[in-house]
Amino acid sequence: MLDCLRPEIRAMSGYTPGEQPRNSEVIKLNTNENPYPPSPKVLEAIRHALTGETLRKYPDPLGTHFRQVAGRVLGVDPDGIVIGNGSDDILTILTRAFVPQGGTILSLSPSYLLYCTLAELQGARFLTVPFTADWQFPSAWPDLDNHITYLANPNSPSGTCVRLDDIARLAERNRGPVVVDEAYADFAQENALSLAREGRVIVTRSLSKSYALAGIRFGFAVTTPQLAQQLVKVKDSYNCDALSLAAAAAALDDQPYMLAMRAKILATRQRLEQALPSLGFRVTPSQANFVWAQHMDRPAQPIFAALKARNILVRHMIYPGCEGLRITVGTDGQIDQLLQALREIV
Amino acid sequence: MLDCLRPEIRAMSGYTPGEQPRNSEVIKLNTNENPYPPSPKVLEAIRHALTGETLRKYPDPLGTHFRQVAGRVLGVDPDGIVIGNGSDDILTILTRAFVPQGGTILSLSPSYLLYCTLAELQGARFLTVPFTADWQFPSAWPDLDNHITYLANPNSPSGTCVRLDDIARLAERNRGPVVVDEAYADFAQENALSLAREGRVIVTRSLSKSYALAGIRFGFAVTTPQLAQQLVKVKDSYNCDALSLAAAAAALDDQPYMLAMRAKILATRQRLEQALPSLGFRVTPSQANFVWAQHMDRPAQPIFAALKARNILVRHMIYPGCEGLRITVGTDGQIDQLLQALREIV
Repeated sequence: MLDCLRPEIRAMSGYTPGEQPRNSEVIKLNTNENPYPPSPKVLEAIRHALTGETLRKYPDPLGTHFRQVAGRVLGVDPDGIVIGNGSDDILTILTRAFVPQGGTILSLSPSYLLYCTLAELQGARFLTVPFTADWQFPSAWPDLDNHITYLANPNSPSGTCVRLDDIARLAERNRGPVVVDEAYADFAQENALSLAREGRVIVTRSLSKSYALAGIRFGFAVTTPQLAQQLVKVKDSYNCDALSLAAAAAALDDQPYMLAMRAKILATRQRLEQALPSLGFRVTPSQANFVWAQHMDRPAQPIFAALKARNILVRHMIYPGCEGLRITVGTDGQIDQLLQALREIV
Repeated sequence: MLDCLRPEIRAMSGYTPGEQPRNSEVIKLNTNENPYPPSPKVLEAIRHALTGETLRKYPDPLGTHFRQVAGRVLGVDPDGIVIGNGSDDILTILTRAFVPQGGTILSLSPSYLLYCTLAELQGARFLTVPFTADWQFPSAWPDLDNHITYLANPNSPSGTCVRLDDIARLAERNRGPVVVDEAYADFAQENALSLAREGRVIVTRSLSKSYALAGIRFGFAVTTPQLAQQLVKVKDSYNCDALSLAAAAAALDDQPYMLAMRAKILATRQRLEQALPSLGFRVTPSQANFVWAQHMDRPAQPIFAALKARNILVRHMIYPGCEGLRITVGTDGQIDQLLQALREIV
């Protein structure tokens, strides 16, 4: 049966997610999880939903309650929200909705590696445009005729944002939709929800980072009700389970808790950004819950390995002409240990 | 942005899942849920996994613990198991792995309507071969050059099984893989796991029916380790959440509980099958947790509507040249109420 696989599938190497060690002694600063637990109201909501009756029955395929809560909290039309099994599910749905086999997907570079994987899976061409040196849009775009443009904003690995008016201009000139992947937007100063409301871009969100819910897999798209109706045809009918739906609604509903976690993470991020230069790192000012750090005169790999030997896991990322360490903003205690280890290493 | 959708997406009407009323007074016999709650050990496993630490971290992308349990219980290689967010997710993964745009998907007819939706989403042709009058394979097949063949076994809406040696023969002669969709296999007398172990077919399983876990979305594929490795590239990295993984492993691990539910459902199925003919229905002997009932001289729609007016929901299914009611085997009490209502209606 291996011979019957689509050649694109055989050829691809597959997306490699960050390491997920089951050893709880590891200080895990490699996949941008939130270092704090989710709101107690989330655990309460799951406990409340956790009955034999809820488990044995299919969940609400459209996540009506979640969409109502999210619509109210974010000030968007609930009918313009599409629920996903993580925002990766939403990115898959969007790719399948807009990109034909042989089509093209555009992304800036370096950015989230999954966009390339999505193109490979769809049998589409993947084109990239390099960011400017300060992680902004280039002045000239080679191709505006692509089927979808993915824009991680804040971007990974840089943690930087491009300007909203640049996004709006790109969306106007581009043939296919511009998808603003806002997995990290709750840590940033602004977001593109206003553009999504007006149907100028599609915004995707994740509950894995700012809401500390990577374990339940929940994300969503914000677009127009008309487009949402079409995207629902592409998703699995029951793509979100009953417990995740309950958790997600409770998480969105507890904004004070999320904002308190956010404030702590932003304060720790500032400490980390201020400490790394004295250890020889160049740090890009971040609007996300991670920091992109490049050592001035030492390669990243040995630093990564020495940290790992001390049970501290960060992400070593290599792009054409550019490598560095992407360090998740952990708790103050975790960042203290990281900095202490780096002092010994570099 | 609507103009930018792939024409296949705009053209399709989308899969319509069975109605999911939130009104708990409805006797819900329309989507083949298990009428009994899942094993208490499943609820215990979820409660045990339900910590802030589990929720904030990404789950194991490969579901290693679940695969070990399932491998042991089913007597298959854990490395040949691929986890899915419901078996619909697995069917999507298989379609994307094997079927190019413009390819062909074959299914018997009438069968699970999702196979056609999967073909539409992939931009593939959907071909069907009619079952024989007694729901077996036809002697002549028009096309064995398709990219994938989906075979629901037991089939929906009929509840019937085709013979294993017929499946083996089809798999030998077919170019693309034969996927035996065994969502209902735990209610049947035999299954195709032995063929999957040998790499002759791919088997898909769901925890929604026999394990009473439709609410958590969990399914899996059984194939060879070599093919499983390829399919993992097609799935979302974290397609199964931490609580579902814990629930699924506990469910598989409690075979005595599943077998006890199965025994009750089979006994009730027999009662239902024996009672319906006296009410004028022709009943197909079922190997699933539902019964396909066609009234001898009355159309199905008014019966469906009259039941619905009495808060009893069954599934009215219409296929070319064939319609009927697909009735989920509920508890004895629910089936008593159904039969009482039918006595008043027909």
